Amino acid sequence: MAIRALVWNEYEHERVNGLVGRLYPEGIHGAIAAALAVDAGVTVETATLDEPEHGLSEARLAQTDVLVWWGHRAHGKVEEKIVDRVQRRVWEGMGLIVLHSGHFSKIFKRLMGTPCALKWREAGEVERLWVVNRGHPIAAGLPEYFEIEPEEMYGEPFTIPEPMETVFISWFEGGEVFRSGVTFQRGAGRIFYFRPGHEAYPTYRHEQVRQVLRNAVRWACNPAPAWTAVGDAPNVPHDRAPVAIEAKGPRLHQDGEQGFR
Amino acid sequence: MAIRALVWNEYEHERVNGLVGRLYPEGIHGAIAAALAVDAGVTVETATLDEPEHGLSEARLAQTDVLVWWGHRAHGKVEEKIVDRVQRRVWEGMGLIVLHSGHFSKIFKRLMGTPCALKWREAGEVERLWVVNRGHPIAAGLPEYFEIEPEEMYGEPFTIPEPMETVFISWFEGGEVFRSGVTFQRGAGRIFYFRPGHEAYPTYRHEQVRQVLRNAVRWACNPAPAWTAVGDAPNVPHDRAPVAIEAKGPRLHQDGEQGFR
Amino acid sequence: MAIRALVWNEYEHERVNGLVGRLYPEGIHGAIAAALAVDAGVTVETATLDEPEHGLSEARLAQTDVLVWWGHRAHGKVEEKIVDRVQRRVWEGMGLIVLHSGHFSKIFKRLMGTPCALKWREAGEVERLWVVNRGHPIAAGLPEYFEIEPEEMYGEPFTIPEPMETVFISWFEGGEVFRSGVTFQRGAGRIFYFRPGHEAYPTYRHEQVRQVLRNAVRWACNPAPAWTAVGDAPNVPHDRAPVAIEAKGPRLHQDGEQGFR
Amino acid sequence: MAIRALVWNEYEHERVNGLVGRLYPEGIHGAIAAALAVDAGVTVETATLDEPEHGLSEARLAQTDVLVWWGHRAHGKVEEKIVDRVQRRVWEGMGLIVLHSGHFSKIFKRLMGTPCALKWREAGEVERLWVVNRGHPIAAGLPEYFEIEPEEMYGEPFTIPEPMETVFISWFEGGEVFRSGVTFQRGAGRIFYFRPGHEAYPTYRHEQVRQVLRNAVRWACNPAPAWTAVGDAPNVPHDRAPVAIEAKGPRLHQDGEQGFR
Repeated sequence: MAIRALVWNEYEHERVNGLVGRLYPEGIHGAIAAALAVDAGVTVETATLDEPEHGLSEARLAQTDVLVWWGHRAHGKVEEKIVDRVQRRVWEGMGLIVLHSGHFSKIFKRLMGTPCALKWREAGEVERLWVVNRGHPIAAGLPEYFEIEPEEMYGEPFTIPEPMETVFISWFEGGEVFRSGVTFQRGAGRIFYFRPGHEAYPTYRHEQVRQVLRNAVRWACNPAPAWTAVGDAPNVPHDRAPVAIEAKGPRLHQDGEQGFR
Repeated sequence: MAIRALVWNEYEHERVNGLVGRLYPEGIHGAIAAALAVDAGVTVETATLDEPEHGLSEARLAQTDVLVWWGHRAHGKVEEKIVDRVQRRVWEGMGLIVLHSGHFSKIFKRLMGTPCALKWREAGEVERLWVVNRGHPIAAGLPEYFEIEPEEMYGEPFTIPEPMETVFISWFEGGEVFRSGVTFQRGAGRIFYFRPGHEAYPTYRHEQVRQVLRNAVRWACNPAPAWTAVGDAPNVPHDRAPVAIEAKGPRLHQDGEQGFR
Repeated sequence: MAIRALVWNEYEHERVNGLVGRLYPEGIHGAIAAALAVDAGVTVETATLDEPEHGLSEARLAQTDVLVWWGHRAHGKVEEKIVDRVQRRVWEGMGLIVLHSGHFSKIFKRLMGTPCALKWREAGEVERLWVVNRGHPIAAGLPEYFEIEPEEMYGEPFTIPEPMETVFISWFEGGEVFRSGVTFQRGAGRIFYFRPGHEAYPTYRHEQVRQVLRNAVRWACNPAPAWTAVGDAPNVPHDRAPVAIEAKGPRLHQDGEQGFR
Repeated sequence: MAIRALVWNEYEHERVNGLVGRLYPEGIHGAIAAALAVDAGVTVETATLDEPEHGLSEARLAQTDVLVWWGHRAHGKVEEKIVDRVQRRVWEGMGLIVLHSGHFSKIFKRLMGTPCALKWREAGEVERLWVVNRGHPIAAGLPEYFEIEPEEMYGEPFTIPEPMETVFISWFEGGEVFRSGVTFQRGAGRIFYFRPGHEAYPTYRHEQVRQVLRNAVRWACNPAPAWTAVGDAPNVPHDRAPVAIEAKGPRLHQDGEQGFR
C-alpha cells in the first residue's frame, strides 16, 4: 500500500517576495511534492496555511502517514488547536519531517520541549553535509558527503534534546558546524529534522536534497495501526489486574472514577 | 556553596481530604523539605499554588538550583505564564525533579513533548523498585531493591520519550511494571522523574524514598552559570564569521535584521 | 527480495539432555526456523556449532541479512576468529538477534562492551512481558502484554549499555523485573536482544514469542549495501581534501603512509 | 577527598622521534599530568607501557578514580590481560578519558564494540571545536568555540555507537567535521573521548585543551563504591526470591549450581 505523504507549507514568501516567487513558482510545497512523487510507492498531497484548518483537518491527518513541514515567517499564525491535532497524530504514529526554518515551528518546539534555537547567516556560502551514520535508511544512495551552494548557515549550539540518531553533520564555509539531520521518536511517531532549504536559494532543486526527502518519508512511515490510546490513563481495578489482588488500605478515588489530569 | 532546593506543591489534597491531611499535616511539601534538609549541603524552601505567582517569581526561580514538583488535582490551575517561566529556567540549567502524579503536570508534559500517560490502580499493593543502574548517583546508598507498601500502581506503557538513563524499574503485586526513575536533559537542565508518592499513603516517610530525593537533588544541580542565551537565535554576519567570507547571492534579510520566529 | 535469515544454535542441550531433546527434537534452531518460515518474505537456513567454521563461513555470512543466535553451555567453544567475522558483518549491516542465554555469548559481549550479566532462577514461574514501545515494529500485532509459563527468571541489573530503545519489560512471579527486549546499533547493524527461551521449557512453541521473532527479523534487516569500509581509516591528503589546503607544519607520517593501529 | 587520576601513555614517539621528543621532553603523559595538577582537588600519577604490567597493576587500578589514555603506534603491544583488567575497572566505576589516537586503542574498541575508525590528514590545519552542549560539566569555563592550530584532521564517519552526549563538534580547514567530544557509560564507568592531541604538535600546551582535560577528570569520577558484582550472575533460588514461590516444572540446573558462561 502506498505511503501517504502530505507536504505542508505556509506559502507566504513565494507570494510576497519576488525572488522566492521566481525560484518556486509552484510553491516550496510544490517543489517538495514533486521530489517525493518520483517514488512510485508514495502518494503526495499538499496543504497550506490559508486553507480551512490550514489544510489539516482531522480527517485528512487521519489519512496521512508522513507530514512534511515547511514554515518560517508565519509560525505565529498556525492555530494552537491545529498544532494540538498534529502533535496528537505524531504520538499516534504519523511520521513528521521538519525542514529548515521549521526548527522554530510550534509543532517542532512542542515535540522537542526545548527552544530549538541556533545561529544563522544568509551569505550564500557552501554547506557540506557529511553522512555520519552511513547505514541509516535516510542516507540510502548518498555519497560520503554532498555539497549545497549557496545555502544559509545554521550554526551550533542547536538547542534540541540529544537526538536518537545523528545522520548528517554540516560544515559551513564561514566556520560553523551543525547537526543537519537528526531523528527522534515521540509516542509512535518518528521525527526527522533536516536543515537545508533556505527559501531564497534553489535548495529543493538539488538532487541529493530530494533524495534525502524521499528516503526520510520512507523511514518516517510507521505501518502500525494508529496508537489512539497513547494519551489514555486507564484505571485497572484490583480485581481485573493481571494478578488479581485484594484492595488494601485507604483510597482517594472511588471505583470507576477518572484520574486527575 | 549550598545547593538551593525549592519544593513546590499544589497543597490541595492535604486541605480538602482528611486522610491526606492527617498523613501530611505539614503538607507534602513539608515532608519532602524535611527529607532534603537532612543534607547539610542543601538549603530548602517551599512554595505552593495559592501564593502569588504560585510562589515561583522570576527572582525566586533565578535563585533556585533544583525545583521539586508535586501536583495532582490542580494541574489545570497552574498558569501558563508560570509554566513558561519554569520551563525557561530548566533550559538555563535549573534541575527539575518531578514526583508521582506530576507526570501529568503541565511542566513535565511540555518538557517531554509526549502525553506522559500510564495505567493506575489504588489498591495499597506492594511496589518493589529495582536499581538497574547501580553506579548512578541517584542510586547512591541503596540496596539492590527496596519495597514500598502500600503504594499506588502505575503501569506501562508510560508514554515518555526514550530516557537518557533508566535508574529504577518497579514491580507491582498486581502484575504491572513501570520505569520508576528516569532521567532526561533539556537545554542545560537535568530532569528526574520519580514514580512513588501517592498522597493517600505515607510514602514520603519511607527512608529509601527520602534517600532518593536527596540523591536526586545533588544529581540535578548543574553548577554552570545560567545558560541565558539558550533560546537566542543570533545572526552572525559574513564579515564576523569565524572564517570571514564574502557575502554571495541574493538575500531575504537585511543587515541587522532579526530572524523570524 | 526475500530477507535471508540464518538461525545459529550451539545444538548441545538437545543431544545431551533428554528433556531438552524431547522438547526440541528438531533442535532449538529447527523450532525457531519454523517460526520464521511462516513469513513468506523470509528465507531461513540454520547453522550449528559442530559444522565446519560453525556453519558461519565468510561466504555464508555475506549472504545473510539477519543472524539469530542461541547459545548457552558452549559459549566457550565458539572460535574467536568466527566471532571476529560475525562482529565484522554486524558492523557492515547484518542484523543480529540474540536470544535468552545468548546474553553471555562472545558475540553479544563483544558488541556491547559490558559484562551482560544478570540474576537467574529456574523455577517454572510466570513471565509477563509488557510492551512499553507500542508503535515499535518488533511489537507489531501484540497485545499490551503476553505471558509465558513456565519460564526461567532473568533479573535486573542487566549490565548492558543504555539501549537505543526498550521494547519489552518483564514481570516475574518471584518478584523480579527485566528489560526483555532491547535494541542497539553497532556500525550499520541493528541488534535486538530478546530474553525468553529457556531450553527446558517449550518457549519457542509460544505463539507470541514466535511473532516477536518474525517481527525482529524484519526490523533487523538493513537493506543498505554492506558498509565494507566501516573499519577503514583512510588518509585524505591535503591536496585531495574537500577544500584543498596547503600542508603546514611538521609531519610524522610520509605521503601515502598507513596510520597506526 | 581528592580525585585520583592516572595518566597512561605508551611513551614511544617521544623517544624515537626527535620532533615529538622536543615538543614533549617530559612525555605526553607529563604534559597532561601537569595540566591536571593545576586542579587542587586532583592527585595525579603517570604510568607507561614499558613499566611492569604497563604500570597498571590490580592494586594501582583499584586506587584510580579516572584513567587518562594516550596511545598510538604501540596499541598492539598492550597485553590483553591488562586490557581485561582496565575494562573490568571501568565497569566497576573507574572513569576513562581516551585521547586522540586512542580511538584505536584496544580498551576503547573493546568498550565501544565497534571499529572506532575515522579519516585523517596531517597538514597542520585549523581545528575549531564548537561546544554543542553548553551546560555540560566538560564544557565548564569554555567560550562558544575554541581553535587549535596546527592540528591533525580526523573526519567523519567516526564508527562509534551513538553517544550518550555529544559535547564538541569540530570544523576543519580542509572541509571535514568530527564529533570531537563524546560521552558513554559502560557499567558504572563514565567514558569521555576527546579528539585533539596529535603528537607532532603542541596541543597539550593549549589552554582550553588543558581546561577540557581537567573538566573531564571531574566529570568522569564516579564516587560510588566499586561495583564489584557487575559481572556476577547469581542464582536466586525460588525460596529466597523477593516473593517466595514454589518451584515448578522440569529443571536443567541443580540447586547451587553455577550458570553457564
